[in-house]
Amino acid sequence: MEQLLKVQNFTVSSDGYGAGENQSLEQPFGHADPGTMLSWAGATASWPNRTDNGGTRGLDDYFTRDFAHNIGAEIMGRNKFGPQRGPWENEDWKGWWGDEPPFHTPVFVLTHHLRPSFTLSDTTFHFVDDEPEVVLEKAKAAADGKDVRLGGGASTIRLFLDAGLIDTLHVTVWPHKLGSGVRLWESPDELLDRYHHEVVPSPSGVTHHLFWRK
Amino acid sequence: MEQLLKVQNFTVSSDGYGAGENQSLEQPFGHADPGTMLSWAGATASWPNRTDNGGTRGLDDYFTRDFAHNIGAEIMGRNKFGPQRGPWENEDWKGWWGDEPPFHTPVFVLTHHLRPSFTLSDTTFHFVDDEPEVVLEKAKAAADGKDVRLGGGASTIRLFLDAGLIDTLHVTVWPHKLGSGVRLWESPDELLDRYHHEVVPSPSGVTHHLFWRK
Repeated sequence: MEQLLKVQNFTVSSDGYGAGENQSLEQPFGHADPGTMLSWAGATASWPNRTDNGGTRGLDDYFTRDFAHNIGAEIMGRNKFGPQRGPWENEDWKGWWGDEPPFHTPVFVLTHHLRPSFTLSDTTFHFVDDEPEVVLEKAKAAADGKDVRLGGGASTIRLFLDAGLIDTLHVTVWPHKLGSGVRLWESPDELLDRYHHEVVPSPSGVTHHLFWRK
Repeated sequence: MEQLLKVQNFTVSSDGYGAGENQSLEQPFGHADPGTMLSWAGATASWPNRTDNGGTRGLDDYFTRDFAHNIGAEIMGRNKFGPQRGPWENEDWKGWWGDEPPFHTPVFVLTHHLRPSFTLSDTTFHFVDDEPEVVLEKAKAAADGKDVRLGGGASTIRLFLDAGLIDTLHVTVWPHKLGSGVRLWESPDELLDRYHHEVVPSPSGVTHHLFWRK
């Protein structure tokens, strides 16, 4: 069975930014507010952080609940993992997600500053300083025959796009501009030479863009 | 965790029929051609009967691959199970699906003509002659905490709709008329008093209707 590399539920602003400027501990998405930008997913019944029984069960819920479908590993950039830059001052930082990260698989964090693997609940974080092809090989080997999720941020997705390694992308466009930040694209049309493309407007106001290899 | 009763990937004609007239062994959907009516799902990468690596990975594929998500049992009408009517002449008939049915869970077949349960691969068929509420209780007990799929046909969905037992419905409208057959609805508007409703046109030409309880 073919193992895919997939981008899922990655949200960008209408001007193509996946996060704002000046990421910090207090502002994981920089000047962008993740609660607002990701509210299309947060409103659904399947949102992992939901603590009540409510939530919508329309189109956006299909995307939200597909997050873990046949996924055996994730690859993410260091800036998704945390706000630190350069050498680690210490190894106290274990990610943004508390004691039960929502990944439930091995996670490979790209960084030039390696540190030992560690496990929180059923998620193990590994730190790798390799070319994208090699990181993908490691993630596929760890995924137990399942697909690999490319978790972002935007720079990491660009890196794997430019290396031709991504099989499918689901990018949600939030209908507001950020003006600056970490850019995924100028326009989704940049991918049309290599990918089939479907544009699916959601009743919630966002637009889902689905790409798969030609 | 709440256990839902869900209709998934049920396809009707633009005039509301889930199947044509005169179902038979040769024509499981009566005068309707299932290959054409279900081609929106058959074209996707996740279609269970796909034997090659191709297939689309756009919107329709999300619905197709959601078929088994958190499902622990199915309920179906006898006319989905087979073309026979009245008492069983014998028990040779094991359903349309060969040695590996695509359900992979217990399946409860509604019929006034009971027969012993049997197992094919990882699907076990049970035959029940109870009110919808009781059938749903049995299916939930067998579903191991997961949701229950209501598999159709249209008459069986009507029966459970009229009993107020369905939590979510995904109905795909194929843009052609059948003129006669087994009807699900005159119009999706009939459900609006009880359900939220989203209408999602697919690039493939079908329209997905999503309903969840108010």
